[in-house]
Amino acid sequence: MINLFRYNWMVRDEWFELCKQISSEELLRNRIGGVGSILYTLFHIVDVENSWIRGIQGKPDIQVQFDNYKSIQQVRELSDSWRTEIQLFLETWKNDFEHEIVIVSWTEGRYTKGEILRHVIAHEIHHMGQLSIWVRDLGLQPVSANVIGRGLF
Amino acid sequence: MINLFRYNWMVRDEWFELCKQISSEELLRNRIGGVGSILYTLFHIVDVENSWIRGIQGKPDIQVQFDNYKSIQQVRELSDSWRTEIQLFLETWKNDFEHEIVIVSWTEGRYTKGEILRHVIAHEIHHMGQLSIWVRDLGLQPVSANVIGRGLF
Repeated sequence: MINLFRYNWMVRDEWFELCKQISSEELLRNRIGGVGSILYTLFHIVDVENSWIRGIQGKPDIQVQFDNYKSIQQVRELSDSWRTEIQLFLETWKNDFEHEIVIVSWTEGRYTKGEILRHVIAHEIHHMGQLSIWVRDLGLQPVSANVIGRGLF
Repeated sequence: MINLFRYNWMVRDEWFELCKQISSEELLRNRIGGVGSILYTLFHIVDVENSWIRGIQGKPDIQVQFDNYKSIQQVRELSDSWRTEIQLFLETWKNDFEHEIVIVSWTEGRYTKGEILRHVIAHEIHHMGQLSIWVRDLGLQPVSANVIGRGLF
């Protein structure tokens, strides 16, 4: 399963690079659908991944405010700052964890660790699909969503 | 891994249902980004999944022409007609398959079976993200992309 996280991180970093070409105004422009803007989408996927992976580990959530991350550079630094810890945890993943129940502060739902892991993976891919439509509208070629051909396997 | 296929199939069927509310003209309208239209996106993900899963099994590709599937009902029937065979195959999946190399007719690239399986999963999620933007533009609430809360685990 960690390979799909590695895929998401590689794609995410390519999005950060691509977004350097986009003006701050366009990055923050409110758009129809998704969570509203290109930059907020990137912030959101970083935040959601960290929250759930911490939740799986029984660690308290870290609350971050988008107001403090209004540039690609800042969102990228947030993403980088959390990745090592997430990666280290995922490298210790064992099949025994799959069916363990997780309780988190932000929802009453009770989900298994395996279910949450897949939710986090799909969540990011879904939002990157949304970005691909928005940047085409800006005349840019979106980041490839291909899993094959990335040397991940 | 099969759980993420089950997720995709559930989401796909919900999209087929939702699309009943959309006129044929809007379903076929050429849009910026993605593969071009809502209906062609659904046709494309069904086609790509079947091609790769057959490729993994060493079966010849089945060529289908979008010209013959110009309604939601026809694309859904195509999706349904292939699903049982795909599901039966995925239920026999063994970890030993992960690193076996696959050769297919439509690309010179050589990928492992595990890599292709994840590619097919991500491919569909990515395209469904694109649909979610397009249908919001039509004033509709898109299908939820949540993996959690679907009773899949």
